[in-house]
Amino acid sequence: MRLAELSERSGVSTATIKYYLREKLLPPGRRVSATQAEYDEAHLRRLRLVRAMIQVGRIPVARAREVLAAVDDDSLDHHVRMGAAVWSLPHHPDAAAPADPDDPVTEAARAEAAALVAKVGWTFAGEQGDQSPAYRMLVGALTELARLGYPWDVAHLTPYARLAERLAVADLDMVQAYGSAEEQVEAAVALTVLYEPVLLSLRRLADAEESNRRVGGGS
Amino acid sequence: MRLAELSERSGVSTATIKYYLREKLLPPGRRVSATQAEYDEAHLRRLRLVRAMIQVGRIPVARAREVLAAVDDDSLDHHVRMGAAVWSLPHHPDAAAPADPDDPVTEAARAEAAALVAKVGWTFAGEQGDQSPAYRMLVGALTELARLGYPWDVAHLTPYARLAERLAVADLDMVQAYGSAEEQVEAAVALTVLYEPVLLSLRRLADAEESNRRVGGGS
Repeated sequence: MRLAELSERSGVSTATIKYYLREKLLPPGRRVSATQAEYDEAHLRRLRLVRAMIQVGRIPVARAREVLAAVDDDSLDHHVRMGAAVWSLPHHPDAAAPADPDDPVTEAARAEAAALVAKVGWTFAGEQGDQSPAYRMLVGALTELARLGYPWDVAHLTPYARLAERLAVADLDMVQAYGSAEEQVEAAVALTVLYEPVLLSLRRLADAEESNRRVGGGS
Repeated sequence: MRLAELSERSGVSTATIKYYLREKLLPPGRRVSATQAEYDEAHLRRLRLVRAMIQVGRIPVARAREVLAAVDDDSLDHHVRMGAAVWSLPHHPDAAAPADPDDPVTEAARAEAAALVAKVGWTFAGEQGDQSPAYRMLVGALTELARLGYPWDVAHLTPYARLAERLAVADLDMVQAYGSAEEQVEAAVALTVLYEPVLLSLRRLADAEESNRRVGGGS
């Protein structure tokens, strides 16, 4: 397909597509004339993924390029590659306070995160630890909870980790419904990003619902 | 306690506390001299809540003031008030695309959100609909999924809504461990905000873990 059709099918403007091409977030099309190139379904899929990361996930271009390198690293086993690509996703810069390694509260939060991961048996997370953006995001969030005096211990966190495991099963089932290995890796990254606001909004709706449900049922 | 102690116990600088006082996010202390005021435990709790909303939740000051008005509205039944306060929490401005009411994709997303809420039996959300920031966030997220060609239908969303219900039970159990009604309402709002990065980071870790667990189990 030509650029105009790629734009129409993706809902992304031609100017934005050209920007992604310049930034090498999207591989070049097959040149068919001095001024025109031809794009295929793989371009469309990649474009959707880039859009999800940049537009919804607000991931900086340089970091998005790193995630795509993990997505394209076919030296890895398929599932390892999928895990590594999701693993390499930076978190939203605002989502957690920056960790100060010398701060005792951060140190305590790091120990609690390690204890949680050990307790629920997440061996991959346990091995990689602080090298993962997701792990650093967890440490940052626990630091903030500890600093403000809210619950942040393993006992409180374990039910959330167990529910996250169930979310992961739903996530991976959705991803594995995609046909090829390439599509699955791309979908894993895009759906991780795109389902975050879905999850947060559903939790808030469910919180309000549960609160109303408890009316009259004790305190 | 004096301002200096309030600052020390909350980890919030005196300059920031004075700013919150000026912005009426924090009620004034009891004046004990021309230059000094006395603060109590209620000030400390409120300060922590404000800090959670502004610092972690990145909620604009004017919106935070609206949430506090809901928190303080004691004309409402306790649980209704708690639901209303969480319900009034604005979502992160970046978390979802702004909804365009005339856009057919947004319209379809709105219908799907309504179908989901009806299917899982969330009557409070069903009655309030689009008036809630959380509901608008859901519609925005579904619009983005639909636009980019990823799953966004009730069948795919239902497992996430069911898991959100379980999250809400964990959330409300944590909130109800607080002693007084005032503390519970404040904790409900603060923990909604502060546990969002916890939840997102745990989901990403669990996704990577689950992906690695499926290695060798057929793609």
